[in-house]
Amino acid sequence: MILVLGGARSGKSRFAEGLAAGCALERHYVATGRAFDDEMRDRIARHRTDRGDGWTTHEEPIDLVGLLRLIDDPARVVLVDCLTLWATNLMLEAQDLAARSAELAELLPNLKARVILVSNEVGLGIVPENRMAREFRDHAGRLHQMIAACAAEVYFVAAGLPLKMKG
Amino acid sequence: MILVLGGARSGKSRFAEGLAAGCALERHYVATGRAFDDEMRDRIARHRTDRGDGWTTHEEPIDLVGLLRLIDDPARVVLVDCLTLWATNLMLEAQDLAARSAELAELLPNLKARVILVSNEVGLGIVPENRMAREFRDHAGRLHQMIAACAAEVYFVAAGLPLKMKG
Amino acid sequence: MILVLGGARSGKSRFAEGLAAGCALERHYVATGRAFDDEMRDRIARHRTDRGDGWTTHEEPIDLVGLLRLIDDPARVVLVDCLTLWATNLMLEAQDLAARSAELAELLPNLKARVILVSNEVGLGIVPENRMAREFRDHAGRLHQMIAACAAEVYFVAAGLPLKMKG
Repeated sequence: MILVLGGARSGKSRFAEGLAAGCALERHYVATGRAFDDEMRDRIARHRTDRGDGWTTHEEPIDLVGLLRLIDDPARVVLVDCLTLWATNLMLEAQDLAARSAELAELLPNLKARVILVSNEVGLGIVPENRMAREFRDHAGRLHQMIAACAAEVYFVAAGLPLKMKG
Repeated sequence: MILVLGGARSGKSRFAEGLAAGCALERHYVATGRAFDDEMRDRIARHRTDRGDGWTTHEEPIDLVGLLRLIDDPARVVLVDCLTLWATNLMLEAQDLAARSAELAELLPNLKARVILVSNEVGLGIVPENRMAREFRDHAGRLHQMIAACAAEVYFVAAGLPLKMKG
Repeated sequence: MILVLGGARSGKSRFAEGLAAGCALERHYVATGRAFDDEMRDRIARHRTDRGDGWTTHEEPIDLVGLLRLIDDPARVVLVDCLTLWATNLMLEAQDLAARSAELAELLPNLKARVILVSNEVGLGIVPENRMAREFRDHAGRLHQMIAACAAEVYFVAAGLPLKMKG
């Protein structure tokens, strides 16, 4: 399992897609973003165009754990893009983020598919004034730590360039 | 002297605690956070639980320089967690952050204890709209530069994984 | 061509100046910041003092491409500080940031001068609530990717310490 971290428009998705393309496996893409406004719809469409053909796409904003179980197969590489949007969706639905994160972290090492997870690093700015934003970045940080601990490789991407943190 | 930088919930405290535990020295923990609301009290309590036993804890939100002088001893490892909260406290008391930072940077190379300093990297987000936040991140950046310049080792921690920047 | 990325007060300008000073070339400094208020005027003056003598300074907030063409010379090292302020100025004038960025990325590999570009990494904080700020960090991220792709060397600077990402 591989974790790819990076900032906004850091090239993390493209880098993760390159990793997936490097495996001679059936490519599955899990989009967690919800197209609730035009800005988000544009972002999703642009990602789809950047990605090109050769992918089976699944859209799942909430039940990531269920979907990963369902599509798990050793003949597949599954790219999840991204954990931050999934966590945002959970928070907006007032779900227990800590519990959902623990479920995901527990499932990942048991999957047979090759899994690549993309996530946004959001904890390197000034402390947000908004309490929900502070809670969110705490959750995101803990989630990244849990997943990085069991990942085989962890990359930090900036300006399209990967820095290997683990593996 | 070692500087450990990282984002919110990046695992920087835990990594620093591991470094301290690796020395066969008497462990002292300097907590700079002030428990002025429930959120902060929770955060401090969680850190204390994560840390476990085997530490002598000092709470000092303002006079870090005085405390470090007082508890300095070659038989000790002193972990300061964290510089960002100390700088926040100084700013809220309208103290001269540049002067206090210079005092700290001057003291550090002269201490006999092994010192490990934890601090938050806060300068990698969008420019804050709030002027005080902009000043704060400028001060924090300058403080990190001063301390990194005289540190033996500097680490940047993300997702619980350390990246050695110096040493 | 060299790209130097870093956060606010990370020491990226000073590191870039050191790289420029290391070349035995005529030193040109391109300041893109606009002194529209006292805070900005202070920042520019402090940078000028930090830099010292031995530089020819050009101030160009908008037409960076035109200026780089004009002063291009194989006997020169040209330090642009910084791309983020240039992009901010373009956005405030409602210019087409994507088009201007593409022009710059196209020009850079064809310049004869040794060029060093400094830019702020702004995409590692929580998603900004302000839509313009979100657009800005998307543009900045794409610009960094384009430039990093054709740069010979890319550095990420934190606490005054450079981390080589490429080269």
